[in-house]
Amino acid sequence: MHDISEYLAKNKERFINELIQLLKIPSVSADPAYSQDVINASEAVKASLLEAGCDTAEICETNGYPIVYGEKIINPELPTILVYGHYDVQPADPIDLWNSPPFEPVIKPTALHPEGAIFARGACDDKGQMYMHVKALEFMVKTNQLPCNVKFMIEGEEEVGSENLGTFVAENKEKLANDIILISDTGMIANNVPSITTGLRGLSYVEVEVTGPNRDLHSGLYGGAVANPINVLTKMIAALHNENNHITIPGFYDKVEDISKEERAEMAKAPFSLENYKKALDINAVYGEKGYTTNERNSIRPTLDVNGIWGGYTGAGAKTVIASKAFAKISMRLVPHQDWKEITELFKTHFESLATDGVTVKVTPHHGGQGYVTPIDNNAYKAASKAYETTFGKTPIPQRSGGSIPIVSLFEKELKSKTILMGFGLDSDAIHSPNEHFGVWNYLKGIETIPYFYQYFTKLSE
Amino acid sequence: MHDISEYLAKNKERFINELIQLLKIPSVSADPAYSQDVINASEAVKASLLEAGCDTAEICETNGYPIVYGEKIINPELPTILVYGHYDVQPADPIDLWNSPPFEPVIKPTALHPEGAIFARGACDDKGQMYMHVKALEFMVKTNQLPCNVKFMIEGEEEVGSENLGTFVAENKEKLANDIILISDTGMIANNVPSITTGLRGLSYVEVEVTGPNRDLHSGLYGGAVANPINVLTKMIAALHNENNHITIPGFYDKVEDISKEERAEMAKAPFSLENYKKALDINAVYGEKGYTTNERNSIRPTLDVNGIWGGYTGAGAKTVIASKAFAKISMRLVPHQDWKEITELFKTHFESLATDGVTVKVTPHHGGQGYVTPIDNNAYKAASKAYETTFGKTPIPQRSGGSIPIVSLFEKELKSKTILMGFGLDSDAIHSPNEHFGVWNYLKGIETIPYFYQYFTKLSE
Repeated sequence: MHDISEYLAKNKERFINELIQLLKIPSVSADPAYSQDVINASEAVKASLLEAGCDTAEICETNGYPIVYGEKIINPELPTILVYGHYDVQPADPIDLWNSPPFEPVIKPTALHPEGAIFARGACDDKGQMYMHVKALEFMVKTNQLPCNVKFMIEGEEEVGSENLGTFVAENKEKLANDIILISDTGMIANNVPSITTGLRGLSYVEVEVTGPNRDLHSGLYGGAVANPINVLTKMIAALHNENNHITIPGFYDKVEDISKEERAEMAKAPFSLENYKKALDINAVYGEKGYTTNERNSIRPTLDVNGIWGGYTGAGAKTVIASKAFAKISMRLVPHQDWKEITELFKTHFESLATDGVTVKVTPHHGGQGYVTPIDNNAYKAASKAYETTFGKTPIPQRSGGSIPIVSLFEKELKSKTILMGFGLDSDAIHSPNEHFGVWNYLKGIETIPYFYQYFTKLSE
Repeated sequence: MHDISEYLAKNKERFINELIQLLKIPSVSADPAYSQDVINASEAVKASLLEAGCDTAEICETNGYPIVYGEKIINPELPTILVYGHYDVQPADPIDLWNSPPFEPVIKPTALHPEGAIFARGACDDKGQMYMHVKALEFMVKTNQLPCNVKFMIEGEEEVGSENLGTFVAENKEKLANDIILISDTGMIANNVPSITTGLRGLSYVEVEVTGPNRDLHSGLYGGAVANPINVLTKMIAALHNENNHITIPGFYDKVEDISKEERAEMAKAPFSLENYKKALDINAVYGEKGYTTNERNSIRPTLDVNGIWGGYTGAGAKTVIASKAFAKISMRLVPHQDWKEITELFKTHFESLATDGVTVKVTPHHGGQGYVTPIDNNAYKAASKAYETTFGKTPIPQRSGGSIPIVSLFEKELKSKTILMGFGLDSDAIHSPNEHFGVWNYLKGIETIPYFYQYFTKLSE
């Protein structure tokens, strides 16, 4: 393979600037105020795919935001890699906690990124990581070294549950046919500790509404005599965990995979400093399910978290009101074998049963997805591992992630192919948070590593 | 006593028209746009006191709106009654829910007021109820029957927290010296069920803040491994009540007055339909402290209610975030003998102790006030009770209110005198709401009853 270092050195500034242009588009899929920006981002992705060397690229309409599809087919007999990514981003709120505007990217060094990191919403999740693949293709095409076929499927609804992706995949099985799906939407342990994500958690996301009296009441005249929906909601949520922080929903753990002692011992070898973890988050102690370590709690164990809560008077000063309604958004991270639809039903039944007298409860499922485990004995994992070895000089560690990419199990079901998760971000990159960023070193390292995967995967598939 | 019925019949139209003139002044103390109107209302009250027969009346400046003071001293040896009321009114918003303009009074019959009610902002709270006292004095002076001294202290900031009243009272103790304070700023059960408010609850209002990690986190990567401030807050709030809905704060009930079986039996005689109560609020059941009835729960028992809660993502759709902070506004209604400052401290200590590992807790007191109970065995209560018996033909029911009028305990502290609460409004008169009104019958009944209180109180004080 022609030396990619040379190509990178020559085009580095352009690669960074192209990503910055893409990051300037506030493609927030959750907020309808940004709908034109989301569309604009899809157009920008399509143009970048054509420029990088795709034979064709198209905007595929869905019932929501479009999916950008592009392909470079050199020979139907050769292996085909399908790259998945997303061009939509999380909302930037709370906006006042950003040190620079979320859609005006700036490059600044950080402790973990001494060579600089690009600060912007979507820098890491997922525009930066998705764009590595576009630039990796460019290198292979421009230097005439592409050893396989490459397809791109870049969606605009990942941050709102990929609602229309399932239909698109089911209706385009032939177009999307592939030998392996390649995704960069996860992280690695550290810049000097490369890792490959081998497990993802499933997700069930619901919204709950507790209604008490038919109107807001004066808390002096009615306080203590009627169920206060906020108090009741806190009671119901509190009852979802027991004193050991086990989740109390009946049947919730029934299908949870039992991880062997050996596998847990293997996991425990990953470098991890509890002191640094606590320091980075500025907390005096970790907190979670009894009997499991921090790294187990956020990867192989299912969890339940409130993502938002609101009700009553939340302005300045005081108002003595009993609200008519209280709300919460609650998500559960699931492990392989837990079925998200079944868990959603179990949650609904249990949560409704927790209602006290004097209130009614409504549970609305938002979205969800299944967990996934990548086999580590197949060609794709071997090729990825070798690619990291080549560019990092170290064998990557297989690692379960606590996050969810629900579509991975959808892909397996519809397209019958496995997924390999080559993430180059760090946990500290603050995805979904203010001051999201992506190391420039990581961005370029991704562009450098991906072509080796193309090569090794093609060779191993011979 | 000369027959007041005759005087009332003769002057009824004028009494109503004078009140209507006062109601036309939009003396909204909360809105600076009405500041000249608030001043105009104070002038109108001063003039009415002089016309009614006060020897002197004056506008007393404060740091906010003035207090109108007037007096009719017939003999310093005789008992002195201090009438308190207020000439300011609540804002009229939401204005579009009014059936007639709030400052253009109209008289219309209602189901509970077949003889007509005056619809206007302030009709009941408190211009109408305050003006009853002016007209009662007029009757006594014009018919040469005044048996005691009467002082008036009518303020213009009751609806914005009576901020300057405390200073005025503290600086004018001699001027305000009295044997009993008389206030008509509460209600009664029904026109055929007279009642006297004998208790008001105190209040402690706090804001709490729970902080976990130093920034919002991705719930997939950190979920289950760190304390989620919202989950922890719900746990802490839930822990503030036990399974019987008793409040769990250590020491909270220590000073709560033990109400005798007899007194509770007396209270239970007040007409009350649980079915109508539930129907009006559209709830399937009431909910509250075990061992107490609805009317006890909202009057003689202390309570704890969340008035507002917020944290995390509360917009449309889903965001898989673990918030860095969660907040709630919590108020406690207190009963007599519970000291609001002490309770606030007990709350703070206990709430902070409920924090789990991995979070810090901040409790910020907003404001508060003491509860109050009118003794029912003193001369003032006896005189009031007898006055109602005379004009209603029925013994009034002593009734505790769940609301708070913090100035009542201020008066007791500064002036060392008790307060008697003779309210003639109904709960359905929509005070603080659109279409506030005051029954013409109630207005005239108040003017008729008050002079008897003068008489009986003076006689019992001999």
